[in-house]
Amino acid sequence: MRLRAPIVLPCDQACSVLRDAVVDVTPDGRLGYVGPLAGAPASDAPVRSLPGILLPGLINAHAHSPMTVLRGMGGDLPLMRWLTEVVWPAEAKLTPADIEAGMLLGSVEMLRGGITTSVEQYFQTDHLVRALSATGQRAVVGAAVVDTPGHNWRAQLDEISARIDVDGRFCDRAGRVELAYGPHAAYTLSPEALTLVGEAARARDALVLIHVAESAEEDAAQRAKYGSVPRMLREVGLFGGRVLAAHSIHLSDEDIAELAAAGVGAAHCPGSNAKLASGIARVTAMRAAGVAVGLGTDGPASNDDLDLWEEMRLAAMFARLSTMDSSALVAADVLLMATRDGAEAIGRDDVGVLETGRWADLVHVGVDDPAFAAGLDVPDEHLLANLVWAAGARLVRDVWVGGEKVVADHEPTTVDRAKVQATAGEVTSRLR
Amino acid sequence: MRLRAPIVLPCDQACSVLRDAVVDVTPDGRLGYVGPLAGAPASDAPVRSLPGILLPGLINAHAHSPMTVLRGMGGDLPLMRWLTEVVWPAEAKLTPADIEAGMLLGSVEMLRGGITTSVEQYFQTDHLVRALSATGQRAVVGAAVVDTPGHNWRAQLDEISARIDVDGRFCDRAGRVELAYGPHAAYTLSPEALTLVGEAARARDALVLIHVAESAEEDAAQRAKYGSVPRMLREVGLFGGRVLAAHSIHLSDEDIAELAAAGVGAAHCPGSNAKLASGIARVTAMRAAGVAVGLGTDGPASNDDLDLWEEMRLAAMFARLSTMDSSALVAADVLLMATRDGAEAIGRDDVGVLETGRWADLVHVGVDDPAFAAGLDVPDEHLLANLVWAAGARLVRDVWVGGEKVVADHEPTTVDRAKVQATAGEVTSRLR
Repeated sequence: MRLRAPIVLPCDQACSVLRDAVVDVTPDGRLGYVGPLAGAPASDAPVRSLPGILLPGLINAHAHSPMTVLRGMGGDLPLMRWLTEVVWPAEAKLTPADIEAGMLLGSVEMLRGGITTSVEQYFQTDHLVRALSATGQRAVVGAAVVDTPGHNWRAQLDEISARIDVDGRFCDRAGRVELAYGPHAAYTLSPEALTLVGEAARARDALVLIHVAESAEEDAAQRAKYGSVPRMLREVGLFGGRVLAAHSIHLSDEDIAELAAAGVGAAHCPGSNAKLASGIARVTAMRAAGVAVGLGTDGPASNDDLDLWEEMRLAAMFARLSTMDSSALVAADVLLMATRDGAEAIGRDDVGVLETGRWADLVHVGVDDPAFAAGLDVPDEHLLANLVWAAGARLVRDVWVGGEKVVADHEPTTVDRAKVQATAGEVTSRLR
Repeated sequence: MRLRAPIVLPCDQACSVLRDAVVDVTPDGRLGYVGPLAGAPASDAPVRSLPGILLPGLINAHAHSPMTVLRGMGGDLPLMRWLTEVVWPAEAKLTPADIEAGMLLGSVEMLRGGITTSVEQYFQTDHLVRALSATGQRAVVGAAVVDTPGHNWRAQLDEISARIDVDGRFCDRAGRVELAYGPHAAYTLSPEALTLVGEAARARDALVLIHVAESAEEDAAQRAKYGSVPRMLREVGLFGGRVLAAHSIHLSDEDIAELAAAGVGAAHCPGSNAKLASGIARVTAMRAAGVAVGLGTDGPASNDDLDLWEEMRLAAMFARLSTMDSSALVAADVLLMATRDGAEAIGRDDVGVLETGRWADLVHVGVDDPAFAAGLDVPDEHLLANLVWAAGARLVRDVWVGGEKVVADHEPTTVDRAKVQATAGEVTSRLR
């Protein structure tokens, strides 16, 4: 298949803008040639001309998407009260089927908004994988490891390791879902547990997903004993392999240097961090120190949608407000955070950029909208500004994952959206 | 006409949620009965059942919508450099027809997102009124009064006063466009000019629109001489009638007390203020002091869209970040800021709330979306949270102004959207 579009944004390091360009998709769902039509190799593949902008599928670097079934419930509390009074009691009532229903709804919402890879951290791995296989979305699923009442961290850890040893890291039939370790946070797990998670993950080249410094209070014990959370995580041996630190809000310059030295990526979740009044992560400082920073929606119970386009704008706005520099993050910066940098943050080189050999995960943004009244024949910066600041999830028309079209003209092709909404709605009704 | 919907939000002071309710529209475009179907008076009017949520049209309390034609141009500069290097040179090239084309595009964009009243501050009043009359949007048009090269503030002032004296404040045939005075700011006008504007406006019960304390530097001269901008505006005699202070970012407690004492409203523009790194207005302090605070998009060259739903979310997020209180503004608060409080801030009691006698300016939000998977039969707070945090402009389906349907199934009924976009696009092409 050859797709031709007036604008192709590969989301490479320079954030190039290719005009009248084509993207070749190989039969196994990877990218062949990506570049101007003028330089394209001869091809017998059918050519499909698209009217809008083609870019890589977005990467949601931190999500708990099954929480769509908790959306709108008691969302005006600070983080710890919200977790203990609303979220954890509701989660205790969720059946595996409920979690699958919530993941299905979240996956549909994400795909419609152009998110082709989601980094999920939740319970019931089997059911998450089933939901993701149904919609066709790519994902990293970090199986939860927590040491709170009702959970056995050691059993959870052993279960993930055994699964990876049996099925491999890419556990589903299509090879789209990667298993990972999801230790919740330094304040909910003992140093011993974190040590063992780090060892197990490194032995399998698996990603570790962990919440870091999300609120000022939660990490008091670690700060008192080790000086900071990143330092504690290094000392107990969690770092060294592929690690993604979600939130990473309350970090000193030394903490940021720890992350950079260990090659730890960060998942910035501005919407959730603002709604819960957790604070603003020091994104420009992290980027300057060489930390790969992706963007995450966090769970839809604290955001409350799964819209990575809004997170792009929030990331730019928050960086500007916290540094009082109106060029702190420009449109190209946040677009790369949602694509290329997100892939780097999770240690993946097969998604996030349109280049030969990576997966053909693609988003087609329609341009029949006031946002693009100026047309596409404008300077590169002007085009990127219109895309990031004035367009958005509503204009995502078509989406491909591994060359398979999973959203056509705004609607999922793989599942029945009305049915997915209704099933998730029944879960919410039952929870109340 | 009688509209029936499963949910009607009048946006009254209590932010009531009416279930299975009706809204009667009188033949002259005003609201008759608004309330539960059970208590509705007998009526011969045709009943139209809507599947979604009915609420008052949103009020954009501060906009320069003709700047749609400048959208995406050089938007990463601080306020003063952006104004002097990008905006003012480009504006100098705009013809009256260009401004009309930009206003048309802005008006179409706003109506599609549920904004039925826009408070505009720009040049070429005649052409703004023509564009607004074409789309059918309600507006307050503050004719610009500025004392910068190429402008004669005295002539501008006399022209508005003469117009109001001849045509009345409501100057268009449908009575939807109210004329107002638009003195730019304390730093671009002399005390004498501001004194005369205040006198002229009070004599005609007209609204005065002025930018207040948008950046820390711009008002240095006024601060040095008077202590603060609000104090200067009071001392020169601008206050006393209907006054709306846009932005109002860098205000002390005393400044806020000045606004409250004078009954001055504020237009909070969080998106623009963040993108230009101007700062965060002290919204919770203003509201606590009794200042009516509406929400504005500001011009689409510094935002870059005209989406008041995003401004609602930003207002809540910024209030939470700046106070570190996750309940600083809840969904109901920001919904009222976009409706009822916006009307109060501009001194109008005929819009912003669904109650008998006000204009039938209505928005119908569709609910076939993951945002409303939980359905409408949820507690009031849950419903409002889903509407504000997870729904948005994309779900606005139908819009009425004064009982006239101006948007049907997402598209304007009064003008040809494709043509409006093309005409505005040509202006942008010529400017570059």
